[in-house]
Amino acid sequence: MDTKEKIIALRNEMKKEKISVYIIPTSDFHDSEYVSPYFMTRKFFSGFTGSAGTLVVSETDAALFTDGRYFIQAENQLRGSGIVLMRSGEEGVPTVRKYVSDILSEGGNIGFDGRVVTAETGRAYKKIAEEKNGGIVDIDLADRIWKDRPALEHTEIYLLDEKYSGKSGLEKLSEVREKMSAKKADIHIITALDEISWLFNIRADDIESCPMVLSYAAVTEKSAVLFADKNACSKKVSEYLEKNGTELRPYDDIYDYAEKLSSGKVWLDEKRANYRLAEAVKNCEIISEPNPAELLKAVKNPVEVENTKYAHLLDGIAVTKFMYWLKNNIGKIKITEASAADYIDNLRREVGGEHYIAPSFETISAYNANAAMMHYSADSENCAVLEPQGILLVDSGGHYFEGTTDITRTFALGDISDEVRYHFTLTLRAMLNLAAARFMHGCRGENLDILSRGIMWEKGLDYRCGTGHGVGYLLSVHEGSNSFRHKLSKDRPMSAVLEEGMITTDEPGVYVEGSHGIRIENELLCKKAEKCEYGQIMEFETITYAPIDLDCIDPTQLEAKDRERLNAYHKTVYDKLSPYFEGNELEFLKKYTRAI
Amino acid sequence: MDTKEKIIALRNEMKKEKISVYIIPTSDFHDSEYVSPYFMTRKFFSGFTGSAGTLVVSETDAALFTDGRYFIQAENQLRGSGIVLMRSGEEGVPTVRKYVSDILSEGGNIGFDGRVVTAETGRAYKKIAEEKNGGIVDIDLADRIWKDRPALEHTEIYLLDEKYSGKSGLEKLSEVREKMSAKKADIHIITALDEISWLFNIRADDIESCPMVLSYAAVTEKSAVLFADKNACSKKVSEYLEKNGTELRPYDDIYDYAEKLSSGKVWLDEKRANYRLAEAVKNCEIISEPNPAELLKAVKNPVEVENTKYAHLLDGIAVTKFMYWLKNNIGKIKITEASAADYIDNLRREVGGEHYIAPSFETISAYNANAAMMHYSADSENCAVLEPQGILLVDSGGHYFEGTTDITRTFALGDISDEVRYHFTLTLRAMLNLAAARFMHGCRGENLDILSRGIMWEKGLDYRCGTGHGVGYLLSVHEGSNSFRHKLSKDRPMSAVLEEGMITTDEPGVYVEGSHGIRIENELLCKKAEKCEYGQIMEFETITYAPIDLDCIDPTQLEAKDRERLNAYHKTVYDKLSPYFEGNELEFLKKYTRAI
Repeated sequence: MDTKEKIIALRNEMKKEKISVYIIPTSDFHDSEYVSPYFMTRKFFSGFTGSAGTLVVSETDAALFTDGRYFIQAENQLRGSGIVLMRSGEEGVPTVRKYVSDILSEGGNIGFDGRVVTAETGRAYKKIAEEKNGGIVDIDLADRIWKDRPALEHTEIYLLDEKYSGKSGLEKLSEVREKMSAKKADIHIITALDEISWLFNIRADDIESCPMVLSYAAVTEKSAVLFADKNACSKKVSEYLEKNGTELRPYDDIYDYAEKLSSGKVWLDEKRANYRLAEAVKNCEIISEPNPAELLKAVKNPVEVENTKYAHLLDGIAVTKFMYWLKNNIGKIKITEASAADYIDNLRREVGGEHYIAPSFETISAYNANAAMMHYSADSENCAVLEPQGILLVDSGGHYFEGTTDITRTFALGDISDEVRYHFTLTLRAMLNLAAARFMHGCRGENLDILSRGIMWEKGLDYRCGTGHGVGYLLSVHEGSNSFRHKLSKDRPMSAVLEEGMITTDEPGVYVEGSHGIRIENELLCKKAEKCEYGQIMEFETITYAPIDLDCIDPTQLEAKDRERLNAYHKTVYDKLSPYFEGNELEFLKKYTRAI
Repeated sequence: MDTKEKIIALRNEMKKEKISVYIIPTSDFHDSEYVSPYFMTRKFFSGFTGSAGTLVVSETDAALFTDGRYFIQAENQLRGSGIVLMRSGEEGVPTVRKYVSDILSEGGNIGFDGRVVTAETGRAYKKIAEEKNGGIVDIDLADRIWKDRPALEHTEIYLLDEKYSGKSGLEKLSEVREKMSAKKADIHIITALDEISWLFNIRADDIESCPMVLSYAAVTEKSAVLFADKNACSKKVSEYLEKNGTELRPYDDIYDYAEKLSSGKVWLDEKRANYRLAEAVKNCEIISEPNPAELLKAVKNPVEVENTKYAHLLDGIAVTKFMYWLKNNIGKIKITEASAADYIDNLRREVGGEHYIAPSFETISAYNANAAMMHYSADSENCAVLEPQGILLVDSGGHYFEGTTDITRTFALGDISDEVRYHFTLTLRAMLNLAAARFMHGCRGENLDILSRGIMWEKGLDYRCGTGHGVGYLLSVHEGSNSFRHKLSKDRPMSAVLEEGMITTDEPGVYVEGSHGIRIENELLCKKAEKCEYGQIMEFETITYAPIDLDCIDPTQLEAKDRERLNAYHKTVYDKLSPYFEGNELEFLKKYTRAI
């Protein structure tokens, strides 16, 4: 079936179900950032392979909404499909909701799979339908058309030993229950996979790049239920769950469980939980607020902190070995963006050994102008060959039992232009200035962002993304609670107060379309400094240990304090890594961490 | 009558009205920062003269709630009165609401004058009463007991010529109507005095330190009504109002007007408007959001901006003349905190001439340790005599037809300690660093505050207040929309996006209890810098022109950029002021604005 035939087949099914407009977003049942192949229905129906987009199909129209990252790709992939590309964010382009409202005929129903739409969004669609005297049909039509749809995979669940997690499931449950009791919640339903995996100290391989377990959970004062695939649980896992007061029930049973709730207050975050689940509990009073585990897991406990530093040590060794290989082989052997990515991935696996699990996201390896595209993904069949000139941006990370890493380095492969050197030096100054922050407890990322971004603003530059994000512990590499960003609005929750134990990336950059992209990314551990009469002073410890390419820096553009900060950082890198290097590699490390 | 007798009299009246708990806050009918003598009922009943506090009286108990600024003063003034001091903010001290809820007996009524309590607070009391099966009695009992209560004064209203205001009343009305239409509001009721005075280009002398008109206003698409004292309006004022489509009605008629509204959406900010008024319009749908005029008046138009710079020129001349007098007379003639305050107030009047109206707030003149108290007010009978050593903090400002000023300078009167010099230099660096900010349009004060406060945090210091506040144009010297502060919470609205034309103070400080207080305050005009591909870059122009005492600075503690900034600022001060000085005063100006 080609795309046109798929859309026709979809319209036939829509007709049977009396659906006027059918919506296919890009999500799973858990509002995950990455989704497994089973959930790639939007890609199946539209042919568009980008990571974000919503397909809207009516009796007569079909439109795909995606954002600026994907306009060119979507245009190519949609050509001849009859699907209109809607460039979200461009002037005059409606939102999905507005579009649905515009095309929905009087009395028409809106359909979607209520499990892949958040409760909040689903209710917005419901309101639109009701305004036209129609209703919602919650149904997954893909199942009827997508014949070779991949199975919903439940891989084997494994335990994260308490020597890695630092706390038992029972301890974490009691922390969650404390928060529930403060909100007078009787039942807490959790749908976010990272929160569940964190809570029960379990992991699996159900989601790309995220070692999390496809599951739901429900917690009351006395009970805890994990809804997951029983077959994926070994005896050891089952026993650990039982020991930690957790009952195991089949994955799909959550809907039945929710429907049977007849009283009590249910804590269910409608911004994250899916529509079908929220509808199922609608006889109860719902407390729709961010889940307690979100903030609890963002604050790493001392065991996790110590482990994470070890993960970064392994990671730094791999990145330094990569830098050595790159600098010594460029111009001598054929290296492509993709082969460079493979090389660093392999090094991480080799160096990490039994500690290493998998990459924490698909390595970005982008040469010169390609690096100006923030979400560039090198296609091994058809990617740039590296020349001994210009710069290579490598953004990569690993999942280790000891935690998750995320690091970006930009390397000179030979001569670089004055502009590139200027932008690199500026990026370095911005990164170092935020890392050196001292601030009063109570500050959030919005208060601190200017320490990094302000260095760019001074020169009329900026970057179109946050300065940094939280990092999960063997969960998602992107966590939302803590972050560095500057935009504040009524419509978006502000980021969390920075607490001791939070880990946040610090990754300013300069991106010049058609020319080059530069990013330098370290991770910052938030710590208490001294207490003074005004409160608790906080500071950061940099826990990423890898050289920042001195070949890219113009020292005359550094202020005295920048130079001190850089030299101090490189001294730490040398002290941490040198015991693991010898010979030429050690000389290389010494050279690239020298004081300037 | 002493305090005890007043409380007994109050309880008698409470009994007659079946009131169990009567609440007397510190406010007027307009939620004003400063109140006229008519409204000082809390002071009348309790004997406590501080600027903030709430008195709660029941059949058996009487308690006064005030904050940390006034604990010592309140303790002294309440002694022997039978009124218990409640130290708000201290551990274990309930909020007023919690206290009222605790002492209210089953079936008891809560009483207060519904015009001096905001709608939001009044409704919270109502909820408390209803939980005990009681109700609200909205009544002003003070009138029955306070025999020599000052009259509610309506002074003569004058017009602010459009050469000062830059816009006609009609233009401003149409701006407000545009915002109303966007919110689909049919009627907008305004109770904030600065918004009304701004909107109709009228001023008076009804409120201490604020040249505003005691009034209410109501705006619809076609009509505008000013509720004010007709006798206070000259023919000229009446004619201007009429010409600008505004009907004049008696001050008290607003309640009748509100009650008669039977349909339509009413925009009434319940956080600011009083309870009685909000209750009067309760048959209509209320849009309770910040008023449009709040932000409109915060953005000064080009005429106001140019005028304000002229006001600051006059102000700078006065402050420089004061500094000359102070430095040349200290140790030679007797100068007290109060006589110094009188001297600068007189200079402002003399220099300002026909441009000058009044001080914009009571001048703070605080010597050494007294300056550590942020709200210190020197009592002329009993205040410090200045010695030729240590420092004097002078925080003062003026209302001119050309705008309102607010400036703080801290002067060395002779030898100062190394600690004072260190703190002064740090304060200077913090002030200059914020003034030099370049930032992307969209930033708020919360994003920028760290540029100033972060200099303190680096050294384990802080100040217990915002870094700066908006300044009204011949209205209140403190405006809330734009500000520099760092605390972000769900419960408090964030400050406004910084727009071209906003004027904000920049006033970091160091306050060491029992030793000294330092503050340096300039005003910053927000302006557009260049546009870049990422957006509109914004910057500040400093519009305060007066020397910063070089005798207090340790140049070795300045970074190179601090020194450049200070020297550039002092060059501007010299260029602006020197044409108005001659002889010894000119030499003095030259010396105190020299490059260091």
